[in-house]
Amino acid sequence: MKMTHKKNILVGQSGGPTAVINASLYGVIAEGKKHPEEIGTVYGMVNGIEGFLHDACINLSDHLSPEELELLKQTPAAYLGSCRYKLPEDLSSKLYPLIFHKLEQLNIGYFLYIGGNDSMDTVSKLSRYGQCQGSSIRFIGIPKTIDNDLTNTDHTPGYGSAAKYVAATVREMVLDASVYHQKAVTIIELMGRHAGWLTAASVLARKEAGDNPLLIYLPESDFDLEQFACDVKAALERQPSVVVCVSEGISDKNGVFICEYDNAAQTDSFGHKMLTGSGKVLESFIRSRFGVKVRSVELNISQRCSGMVLSRTDMEESAAAGAAGVQAALNGATAQMVAMKRADGPSYEIQFQMKDVEQICNQEKKFPLEWITRSGTDISPEYAAYALPLIEGEVERKMKDGLPVYLYRTRSGGGGLCQN
Amino acid sequence: MKMTHKKNILVGQSGGPTAVINASLYGVIAEGKKHPEEIGTVYGMVNGIEGFLHDACINLSDHLSPEELELLKQTPAAYLGSCRYKLPEDLSSKLYPLIFHKLEQLNIGYFLYIGGNDSMDTVSKLSRYGQCQGSSIRFIGIPKTIDNDLTNTDHTPGYGSAAKYVAATVREMVLDASVYHQKAVTIIELMGRHAGWLTAASVLARKEAGDNPLLIYLPESDFDLEQFACDVKAALERQPSVVVCVSEGISDKNGVFICEYDNAAQTDSFGHKMLTGSGKVLESFIRSRFGVKVRSVELNISQRCSGMVLSRTDMEESAAAGAAGVQAALNGATAQMVAMKRADGPSYEIQFQMKDVEQICNQEKKFPLEWITRSGTDISPEYAAYALPLIEGEVERKMKDGLPVYLYRTRSGGGGLCQN
Repeated sequence: MKMTHKKNILVGQSGGPTAVINASLYGVIAEGKKHPEEIGTVYGMVNGIEGFLHDACINLSDHLSPEELELLKQTPAAYLGSCRYKLPEDLSSKLYPLIFHKLEQLNIGYFLYIGGNDSMDTVSKLSRYGQCQGSSIRFIGIPKTIDNDLTNTDHTPGYGSAAKYVAATVREMVLDASVYHQKAVTIIELMGRHAGWLTAASVLARKEAGDNPLLIYLPESDFDLEQFACDVKAALERQPSVVVCVSEGISDKNGVFICEYDNAAQTDSFGHKMLTGSGKVLESFIRSRFGVKVRSVELNISQRCSGMVLSRTDMEESAAAGAAGVQAALNGATAQMVAMKRADGPSYEIQFQMKDVEQICNQEKKFPLEWITRSGTDISPEYAAYALPLIEGEVERKMKDGLPVYLYRTRSGGGGLCQN
Repeated sequence: MKMTHKKNILVGQSGGPTAVINASLYGVIAEGKKHPEEIGTVYGMVNGIEGFLHDACINLSDHLSPEELELLKQTPAAYLGSCRYKLPEDLSSKLYPLIFHKLEQLNIGYFLYIGGNDSMDTVSKLSRYGQCQGSSIRFIGIPKTIDNDLTNTDHTPGYGSAAKYVAATVREMVLDASVYHQKAVTIIELMGRHAGWLTAASVLARKEAGDNPLLIYLPESDFDLEQFACDVKAALERQPSVVVCVSEGISDKNGVFICEYDNAAQTDSFGHKMLTGSGKVLESFIRSRFGVKVRSVELNISQRCSGMVLSRTDMEESAAAGAAGVQAALNGATAQMVAMKRADGPSYEIQFQMKDVEQICNQEKKFPLEWITRSGTDISPEYAAYALPLIEGEVERKMKDGLPVYLYRTRSGGGGLCQN
């Protein structure tokens, strides 16, 4: 009987949410359904590997209607829930046989994990343990991160939509910052603790050459307060409204984060140290130095969870990456991550290829120093050529009663339509 | 000759930007063009009455193409620039004859000012001065504010789009806040120093009954820290992820703003007092009291300048309010504001009517106390019935290269297309 050869898929989401991590989940489920002779059920871990350890798991093949599946594709955040859970380094930990026992109980043949470099570490450990044990389960990583910091891939699913959100929002904030005719500095703090990819996207906000944001600072360059003061002074001489974009992770030449410049003695009314961002620190600095109107804005979690300006390219690539992971697993791949290679030539084209997850996990791809201009305050046109294809294309959002409709898990564990 | 009877329009924008203040400007220009026998040119003050005092003024009739005019309608922030400028209380100030001299030089017959209650104060003063002088210039206010705090009108243009942005964004942040399976509190701080209208819109974010945001606090109720601790404790017992929405302007029973609870001794490294929001203060409080994961998010200026989730209803009403202002001026009205009256009956319908600007300027319409539930932590369904029609309808945004295209003034003072 052929039936006995069928294996099930187990898919999970891990790490921080993105606008399109669910599009990759959609890709896994949709591709899974296309191979009824080889694949039985697609199961989803609830809250990643951590939840799976507590048997939190749902059947994704049965409970999502075709309409819900389409909605999943454009729903931000992580439908299955996520975790930040590091498996033990020691492969002789009791956790590994426990996990594999659970995998066998569910007749899992293909384990797909959607996440960033920490999640690739999970894929790596499980596949190494499995290999030792002679397990036939295949472990595949599907990349996801707004930080765009995974190595061995042209870019990561999630980055295009986040970059688009940043560029569109900064463009709007520049319009807002320009309405008054007075000297004013607006500092926009963007996500990216170690890599400046997302902050770099703010350069795309410019409507024309010489437009705001006039100054852009990434964590890859050393940040110097006095140089910053000079930069702002020169910018204010050029035009009254100056918009500055900084990464949350800018640091000085000694590696001290600018957000740590905050007075060490500073505690709040409740006796705790207040957590301050780099934007807030620079806001205070500029106010005390120049006495001009200053405002700092932290773009915050909308960068990773807004579904309002999805990049169609990013959404479709994320779905395709999920599907490519299933195909690769069926073809025998394991301990691999789905990577993207950009084809040479004038038009943008992406090929999927499998890369050794060992080469990717726990690594970071920094923003190229040669794309930061010599002044350290601007991004070169090579970046725009790289990034513009990634933010291209619009998604027609599903709306009801004036608000976006999203798919979410109801408390019973099933799938429910997120509606008013 | 009929020509000599023609008068010109002068239109300005004042106060904080909104997503649709330019739609009202569009309405003024478009309506102005419809009366070629009575109206000559539509001039725009650059940076409101303050700019006009320095002769900053552009011809809006000639320099905007039909395509640009359409783009103006969906461009957020203030195309003409804005100001926060209060005219002298003393009508014998030399400023008044100066302004009227400039108005006469430009052959202005109709002065239209788009703004909130401070701007209505400008309309009031100019019309009072004009009346004394026997001037025939008609002064009309066109309402605009995301705060929805103008009296004598059902709601204000700008509120619908801001409320929609708040509801949609909070809905997305709730999805984001729910991905991890751990106790966590997310505090979202919303605009509205004295009136809670915008914070109330967060109730529309709920996907179903009992959904987040579980707690909503408006400035209209006294805020008590200990009661807040009880509320949060109870909410955390119900579910692990608790989202709280607070207005920036919540204050205690003595009228002290919660954002002022910040330790008075707290200065930054540069010797200045750090400015902290109510969300940040509550974040510290919850962290010290409960030791759970807490994050505070300030929605910030995107509430007023995002063009990504415009309400079509709001945009069309804003344009119609601008047109109604021109019509009223032509019909002889002066010292009046365009107001909106909601028709009785089951379907939503708005009638424009003119209201005495004297009754409106320098007043604030608070959120009705009877729409705040007895616990002071929730909003009653009457509000949703009031607000849902205002956020209804989508606008097809003009996009290019993956980013929104907006109209903006080039430095030469003309109109230029905001493109990459």
